[in-house]
Amino acid sequence: MGLEINAVYLSYVVHVLAVAGAVMVLVWNIHFRGGLAWESSNKNLIFNVHPVLMLIGLVIMGGEAAIVSYKALPFKKAEKKLIHLILHAIALILGIIGIYMAFKNHNESGLANLYSLHSWIGIGVIVLYGVQWIYGFLVFFYPGGTGDLRKESLPWHVLFGMFVYILAVANSALGFLEKLTFLESSGIDKYGSEAFLVNFTAIIAVLYGTFVLLTALSRAPAEDHHSYSAI
Amino acid sequence: MGLEINAVYLSYVVHVLAVAGAVMVLVWNIHFRGGLAWESSNKNLIFNVHPVLMLIGLVIMGGEAAIVSYKALPFKKAEKKLIHLILHAIALILGIIGIYMAFKNHNESGLANLYSLHSWIGIGVIVLYGVQWIYGFLVFFYPGGTGDLRKESLPWHVLFGMFVYILAVANSALGFLEKLTFLESSGIDKYGSEAFLVNFTAIIAVLYGTFVLLTALSRAPAEDHHSYSAI
Repeated sequence: MGLEINAVYLSYVVHVLAVAGAVMVLVWNIHFRGGLAWESSNKNLIFNVHPVLMLIGLVIMGGEAAIVSYKALPFKKAEKKLIHLILHAIALILGIIGIYMAFKNHNESGLANLYSLHSWIGIGVIVLYGVQWIYGFLVFFYPGGTGDLRKESLPWHVLFGMFVYILAVANSALGFLEKLTFLESSGIDKYGSEAFLVNFTAIIAVLYGTFVLLTALSRAPAEDHHSYSAI
Repeated sequence: MGLEINAVYLSYVVHVLAVAGAVMVLVWNIHFRGGLAWESSNKNLIFNVHPVLMLIGLVIMGGEAAIVSYKALPFKKAEKKLIHLILHAIALILGIIGIYMAFKNHNESGLANLYSLHSWIGIGVIVLYGVQWIYGFLVFFYPGGTGDLRKESLPWHVLFGMFVYILAVANSALGFLEKLTFLESSGIDKYGSEAFLVNFTAIIAVLYGTFVLLTALSRAPAEDHHSYSAI
């Protein structure tokens, strides 16, 4: 596609939204929900780690991984690729730990697992994210596929990456809605400051995802036109 | 982008998923939720019209409008355009009626309006869908913009259409999750047949949206390569 916008300017918007989203999810879970804990007799504190790691890890770090490396840094191709795969590995690992914390909370509190749409799509997203990472590693990094395989794989790698990323962002919105619906049915004000904070955090996440995809579709100023292009 | 897949084959998958999604949302609301009504002392029947019209109208009809006309029918360009704008108008009108039914149910039952993420994004989607339709009508149909304006507007029309469509599909998933969470907190079985039906309807909607976008990104067999391309 290649939109005629300078990807670097878009990437500044991405970074601002990244900081806003990260601050908001931390304020929500630390100030409103009582804080974060790996082990605690207050099982809610264990759950609180889940939205923090999923948003800051999978969504924000994953978005930066997808675009920063290729669209906004002046490095060489091999260096960009290394940054891309390392950032995505960190995003994936934080996502896996975040999902583990949701199960840990459920199991220690006697809550049911894997009945909600959010949990189903979440398992799908983390599996597809992992598959995408492994395929990318094998074909584009080590041992690396033939030139033809790389060339044919690249548009699908980009498209599938966008698909998984849209699902991840949408699933974070599902998670915010689900948790807030639980909180509202146990009494917090539907029009109160916490409810607004959670809804706006979800909207920032959606805007963040939108600008990540726009950046990915835009023209990197120093894009290498001699090799196969990323989109 | 232009994926090297024949859009017609993909559009068959779209139609099958359309029928599956429509049947599932009807079975849910008629068989499990007691039926549909414009006026009733049982206010739940008024609400039930909302998911039916949003899924069959905005999501399914909107998806068919987006792709069938341009990617899967052997008509001339002017006829395709007319089908495209009429189907989208129907989708938009069904969507507006669907939203009205949610407000009608809330107002007649004394429930709060516009506090949830689903409602916020829903208002955003219907406004953006309307803006997109009006802009498309004025620039591409009547009175019609200059050749340059059309040429410059088209990629943005496609991109913005995809953006609004992704939001619409994601918001239907939010709606299914929200309603099912209410039902589960008032007692229906988290692993029961209704819960599975609702979750799978949402997943069919997501798959439907995915195949709509894939079809839009694919090559129409009789695509007119002499005029500006749709993507």
